Amino acid sequence: MSDLLIRNCNVLNITIDQRAFILRDHDILIHGNRIESVQPTGQADSSHFKHVIEANGQLAMPGLINTHAHVPMVIFRGLAEDVTIEKWFNDYMWPLESNLQPEDVYWGMQLGLAEMIRAGVTAVADHYFFMDEAAKAVEKAGTRALLGWAIFGSGGQEMIDRTVRFVKDWQGTAGGRIRTLMAPHSPYLCDDDFLRTCVKEAKALGVGIHTHVSEVMAQTESSLQKRGQTPIQVLEQTGVFEVPTILAHVIGALPMDMPIMAKYKAGVGHAPKTYLKLAMGTSPVRMFRGHGIAVGLATDGAVSNNTLDILESLRLMAMTQKQEAGSPEVLTIPEALYIATRESAQVYGQPDELGALDPGNLADLILVDMSGVHHQPLHSMTASLVYNTTAADVRTTICDGQVLMHERKLLTLDEGEIIARVGANMERLAQRVPNKRIQVYNP
Amino acid sequence: MSDLLIRNCNVLNITIDQRAFILRDHDILIHGNRIESVQPTGQADSSHFKHVIEANGQLAMPGLINTHAHVPMVIFRGLAEDVTIEKWFNDYMWPLESNLQPEDVYWGMQLGLAEMIRAGVTAVADHYFFMDEAAKAVEKAGTRALLGWAIFGSGGQEMIDRTVRFVKDWQGTAGGRIRTLMAPHSPYLCDDDFLRTCVKEAKALGVGIHTHVSEVMAQTESSLQKRGQTPIQVLEQTGVFEVPTILAHVIGALPMDMPIMAKYKAGVGHAPKTYLKLAMGTSPVRMFRGHGIAVGLATDGAVSNNTLDILESLRLMAMTQKQEAGSPEVLTIPEALYIATRESAQVYGQPDELGALDPGNLADLILVDMSGVHHQPLHSMTASLVYNTTAADVRTTICDGQVLMHERKLLTLDEGEIIARVGANMERLAQRVPNKRIQVYNP
Repeated sequence: MSDLLIRNCNVLNITIDQRAFILRDHDILIHGNRIESVQPTGQADSSHFKHVIEANGQLAMPGLINTHAHVPMVIFRGLAEDVTIEKWFNDYMWPLESNLQPEDVYWGMQLGLAEMIRAGVTAVADHYFFMDEAAKAVEKAGTRALLGWAIFGSGGQEMIDRTVRFVKDWQGTAGGRIRTLMAPHSPYLCDDDFLRTCVKEAKALGVGIHTHVSEVMAQTESSLQKRGQTPIQVLEQTGVFEVPTILAHVIGALPMDMPIMAKYKAGVGHAPKTYLKLAMGTSPVRMFRGHGIAVGLATDGAVSNNTLDILESLRLMAMTQKQEAGSPEVLTIPEALYIATRESAQVYGQPDELGALDPGNLADLILVDMSGVHHQPLHSMTASLVYNTTAADVRTTICDGQVLMHERKLLTLDEGEIIARVGANMERLAQRVPNKRIQVYNP
Repeated sequence: MSDLLIRNCNVLNITIDQRAFILRDHDILIHGNRIESVQPTGQADSSHFKHVIEANGQLAMPGLINTHAHVPMVIFRGLAEDVTIEKWFNDYMWPLESNLQPEDVYWGMQLGLAEMIRAGVTAVADHYFFMDEAAKAVEKAGTRALLGWAIFGSGGQEMIDRTVRFVKDWQGTAGGRIRTLMAPHSPYLCDDDFLRTCVKEAKALGVGIHTHVSEVMAQTESSLQKRGQTPIQVLEQTGVFEVPTILAHVIGALPMDMPIMAKYKAGVGHAPKTYLKLAMGTSPVRMFRGHGIAVGLATDGAVSNNTLDILESLRLMAMTQKQEAGSPEVLTIPEALYIATRESAQVYGQPDELGALDPGNLADLILVDMSGVHHQPLHSMTASLVYNTTAADVRTTICDGQVLMHERKLLTLDEGEIIARVGANMERLAQRVPNKRIQVYNP
């Protein structure tokens, strides 16, 4: 007896050569935490399944993957608007984060996971503090996560030791839903020796590294001026690329960085809403992909991005790349959907198990309702997915074979309690004490 | 006895000097089609009202205004993706529009109005064909509209005569909700004599003109090359600016155009999603506003913009202007909200009656629910309004004192019938016959 039958959906199929088509009127059969079969409706006998979901023609697609975020940062959402990136760090974000207590991360992570489940996001590569608490929240929420405890060079060996302990405690837990990695913040806040030690520990632990690099062109220019190397070259020289790597942003990448990133198969976390809001410039997504470097969709934290909505990132990526190229013919709908699915799974580090509704893959998928007037008439499901769909159209979210949201109702998290817990601490969290900050931004 | 009490909302107040604040725990009293009072909750006796809406802390703001659209074009949504602007016109849009029949406009207009009511849009300056049918749909939907029958110079006097008849038939109808104007397509598709005749008729009828001009810089360059004048100068010379004018897009505006647009108080309809998708360049919104030229939010048609969602236009305007300026400090949240409310009302031509919840104004307003996890914790309602709110957060839409949507249920339109009617004609509408098109784009 199988576990779950999703009956009568239109299944988004993104091929490995970046074409997109729809399998109309198909069923998805799930056994345990894996997809067993995708087959035309009418063949499966519903009495052979423990649970049946009637999709009624909704679009089924892989659960969305957020390849770079700081999820618990939602607790500070809306507190740093219309300011420069330097003020954003030094006058807002890093003073605010000096207010953080472990339970803020626990409830903030739940709040952000609730938002993501509602937006069809089933996996997140997260980079933040007090990550034991984040991991507990993921365990409870039922989502998938690749967790890194953000560390700065100024914290020294003690921070590295804590991360090692965190990795040992959590790697592969929650039935494999939780994976971990090392998360040195960035080359500008971690010196070379610190990065080398991170690499050594990552290798010993068999995990990867998730870091910020060349976030804006000014960082690249500063690095070239100070030491004659791009930040990407610094990561190569310190050995960071010798383990699987997620690189956040990389807007300041130079053509000379491309062969390095390509050689080591480093993936890029791409958060276009943050780039627009903070006027960081446009990411060279087409240059990356032209060199075979994988790009994954991301949201960054909610203090720059305001939302944790990957559908919004998808749309903004396609549109800003067209704008940057001066051509509407680039970053087509099939390419955009390939990035949102298979390519994001590659950046996330599970390309053979996630990002496609193929038999044998992990059962992470969502059902999207396109019956609303803002999709009609539905001449093109794929166009509507990229340009019309919002989080509220996601009706059902399934991760690892478990239904986390059905018909917009969350099944693993208590939104009322989460909102109340976070809300109770708003005043404390919003305080900014002069000169009290966790770091200084001066790359 | 008054008609409607909206109890216990947080009222968005945008001042004429572009500051934004929230009146917490206020009631809105509506008498007939006008706002009677906005006052602290607790003073009004609900037994004195025919209807009471409990807002429970939702945000009340003016109904959104779409200052440039082709609403019935929704029937072709999704049929022209990832193509250049030249192909978009010549290979897709204008061949597709040769399929148009009057009833397509009637049902397409209803479909688009349903989408807009759901997105909190209560007024639209629309520019399309078979506008008698569009007007009938507006009458039924209960929204406000400023309707223009799009005409091309190639149609000659006959087209102008039809528009004159349309204006006479519909101006001021539906209790004043429907206004009309002349809608010559653009200087590149209307010669000078045709434009002059439109002006003459507009003056005689006491209405304005709504046209496309300098949509992209290439059009401005072409006009300068062909006749030594910018398209804006052509409009001045033909007298277009002597009546109230809405100018769509104007991305190709030059500094020399600014004094002209400012002198005649021409308003700009700004549709940033279309500009991104078609890689048209970034509109000089800050240059316009620096010269005192009003900018209103817009969606253009759904074949370029895909949605008719003014909240999306609001967010994209703020973000693309920050990007273009290379500074996150421009187009701040209060400025963006001023444009979305009072300034859009100015472009729409009713600055003294719309765009603010002031006593005596027309009762066009919406209630936005910010209790969802994607808004929480709600450190800043105004930030959340610009950067987190989606159409699905709009719970109630009121226009001219009439409730058009309450708790997401449409009260004037039958979505099931609309979707069925439009859906039944999808195959016919999607046909493209070689060399059959309504115009040729070659500006």
